[in-house]
Amino acid sequence: MATARDRSHAIAAPRKPRADGQKSRDAILRTAAGLVTVEGITGLSIGRLADAVGMSKSGLYAHFGSKEELQLATVDTACRIYDDVVVLPALGEATGRARLEALAERFLMHVQESVFPGGCFFASVAAEIDTQPGPVRDSAMAASAQWFEHLASAIQSAQAEGEIDPAEDAVQLAFEVNAYLLMANAQFVAGDAGALDRARRALKRKLESVARP
Amino acid sequence: MATARDRSHAIAAPRKPRADGQKSRDAILRTAAGLVTVEGITGLSIGRLADAVGMSKSGLYAHFGSKEELQLATVDTACRIYDDVVVLPALGEATGRARLEALAERFLMHVQESVFPGGCFFASVAAEIDTQPGPVRDSAMAASAQWFEHLASAIQSAQAEGEIDPAEDAVQLAFEVNAYLLMANAQFVAGDAGALDRARRALKRKLESVARP
Repeated sequence: MATARDRSHAIAAPRKPRADGQKSRDAILRTAAGLVTVEGITGLSIGRLADAVGMSKSGLYAHFGSKEELQLATVDTACRIYDDVVVLPALGEATGRARLEALAERFLMHVQESVFPGGCFFASVAAEIDTQPGPVRDSAMAASAQWFEHLASAIQSAQAEGEIDPAEDAVQLAFEVNAYLLMANAQFVAGDAGALDRARRALKRKLESVARP
Repeated sequence: MATARDRSHAIAAPRKPRADGQKSRDAILRTAAGLVTVEGITGLSIGRLADAVGMSKSGLYAHFGSKEELQLATVDTACRIYDDVVVLPALGEATGRARLEALAERFLMHVQESVFPGGCFFASVAAEIDTQPGPVRDSAMAASAQWFEHLASAIQSAQAEGEIDPAEDAVQLAFEVNAYLLMANAQFVAGDAGALDRARRALKRKLESVARP
């Protein structure tokens, strides 16, 4: 199996490093987002990131004035990557059920393809700083809440469209679907690639059991 | 809501500190296990723990020769606490189905009662060091695998006893049950107490759907 570090090219920016050794803010933040899923966000300092991107600390201070500013910008970048890869394409599907299935499948694919080398960025950050109040935690938690909202909203649409039993509690069902996805993420990152198919089977079984009677 | 730190008394050893300011190895490790679920295991150094328990670093070096030795002893202590509170009482139930339900309910109760102030010790550590090879990761992952084995084994017993459809894939079902539990843990620690009841409902629905036909 490739190590996490081997796979960290997955979200590297496509452009080459500039000749003068400087990297764009976007390229730096993409490196930071990947690093966070392997080393944690608490350890993401300007010094650590300077090492990782091969820039001077003073060069990075020109981009980010403080560690917290860097952490917040990294969460924003992770949100953008996640939206581009997982959320926005799925929301383009025509029906609620298709949106739900696409959200789930794209989540699993982004884990499988190591878009972030340590798996889901938000699960990783939430587990690390869920008990540490502050703007970085709030920002990561807001992103997780928005994801949950996308799942629940797709379920409600599917109920209105007759694909899911309207008697189902949409929040309860979103909880169960999200549980499969995050369990698969945790087990995949721990080395069990079969977890992704277990989540796919769990979702299929669940959708069969909540089909309109 | 009480902060994580306010609740960290939950696994403090019941005895009073000794008059000479020294604490027993067990009391130190219980403090360490709680601290890990809030601050992470990577940051658990002899210096950090010395601050937390109010002892000198040299006093702690007498107990633990290195940071890694301390981390491994902390994982062992967390396993003992978890076995005492969750696993062993549940395994005393007479049937597979009762064992499965007791494992799940005791897991949820240990989250609800903040046995560890930052929620499930093993979920917390796994999320933090799943991509960092070494004996500490291996030890925590072995504990998670053993927990999964307890769930699957209770399901297999329930199948043999006619309480769960023998056509069910026990590993698939254990995956789904564990997913509900860990999702509830993550959401509870993030401040959503209703997540525990969502996991209870999910488990009830699931057991109804896999009952022997």
